[in-house]
Amino acid sequence: MRPNTDPVEHLIALLSRIPGLGRRSARRAALRMLSDPQARMLPLAEALRAAAEAVRPCATCGNLDSRDPCLVCADPTRDKGLICVVEGVADLWALERAHAHGGTYHVLGGTLSALAGTGPEDLSVAPLLRRAAEAREVILALPATVEGASTAHYLQDRLAPSGVAVTRLAQGVPIGGALDVLDDGTLAAALKARR
Amino acid sequence: MRPNTDPVEHLIALLSRIPGLGRRSARRAALRMLSDPQARMLPLAEALRAAAEAVRPCATCGNLDSRDPCLVCADPTRDKGLICVVEGVADLWALERAHAHGGTYHVLGGTLSALAGTGPEDLSVAPLLRRAAEAREVILALPATVEGASTAHYLQDRLAPSGVAVTRLAQGVPIGGALDVLDDGTLAAALKARR
Repeated sequence: MRPNTDPVEHLIALLSRIPGLGRRSARRAALRMLSDPQARMLPLAEALRAAAEAVRPCATCGNLDSRDPCLVCADPTRDKGLICVVEGVADLWALERAHAHGGTYHVLGGTLSALAGTGPEDLSVAPLLRRAAEAREVILALPATVEGASTAHYLQDRLAPSGVAVTRLAQGVPIGGALDVLDDGTLAAALKARR
Repeated sequence: MRPNTDPVEHLIALLSRIPGLGRRSARRAALRMLSDPQARMLPLAEALRAAAEAVRPCATCGNLDSRDPCLVCADPTRDKGLICVVEGVADLWALERAHAHGGTYHVLGGTLSALAGTGPEDLSVAPLLRRAAEAREVILALPATVEGASTAHYLQDRLAPSGVAVTRLAQGVPIGGALDVLDDGTLAAALKARR
């Protein structure tokens, strides 16, 4: 009934590429939007365009922001001597929402992976070493996976000569987490690191 | 950390209003998009704008399309004497996906509801009566709910003087089920066994 050049089909196809929206949800979303294009479609179109134009990676830490340096790096109250290394911007935002870190960040852009062919030259390692030379402590807040662990080991080796303190996130039982739903690895780690 | 005027926060707020996307999924979607704005954001912005500008309700049947008359009404192979009445455009699209109906459609724009204060004047009833006067058969493909049934009764009464045959979808449509979530086979069977 509808050729692919149809604006509605084209919109549904692009909406269904949004993570979390399948084809069926994309169709429902398109229909809902089309019921009130002025209020539901044009503002989103404008927001997408504005964000695409304004948002750039921060030249210092790699955070995505409409300002460069980003809000965190530009904040004079943040401790520049304390750098928290994260795999991606999603992790940075999660830590910011937790209001738990008073320092700055460094977005690595991934983790080392022989399988995926990701080497140190594919990650923001050299800029981290430069920043670490003037820092007091580097916190490695990398994912608790094989790749995250081997990346942390690698960074620890590379950071050692600069004399900066290198720490990692504590592993253990999440706050409010029930023991019986935790995986064995987490339980074992929490038990081993008891204090 | 981010004021509400921030392009990223604004984008996340609008994305989270898409049916099916919560706040968390909207944040994930925004991050994924921002990783490649040229490929992921600008095409969607353009598709939203194009669809919002191009898509209008068909003056004949009420279908949403970039053409008026819509593709169904403009199709010379469709039986103009056979009109399928649906509650909304989602139901029309569902029936089209089932490839089960060779006639045309009429989008009512809702169902009668004393609770919601929806009367016949709020629905596309008068245009339907005009079209039915020149038709052979009107199929009432309304939802199997109390409102759908009472709307069907009302339309049957109003259509009786014109002498047009009035049929309904066969049983097989689950009670309380919405048409647009039904599988194609059930839709096709219900349409074929109309009485």
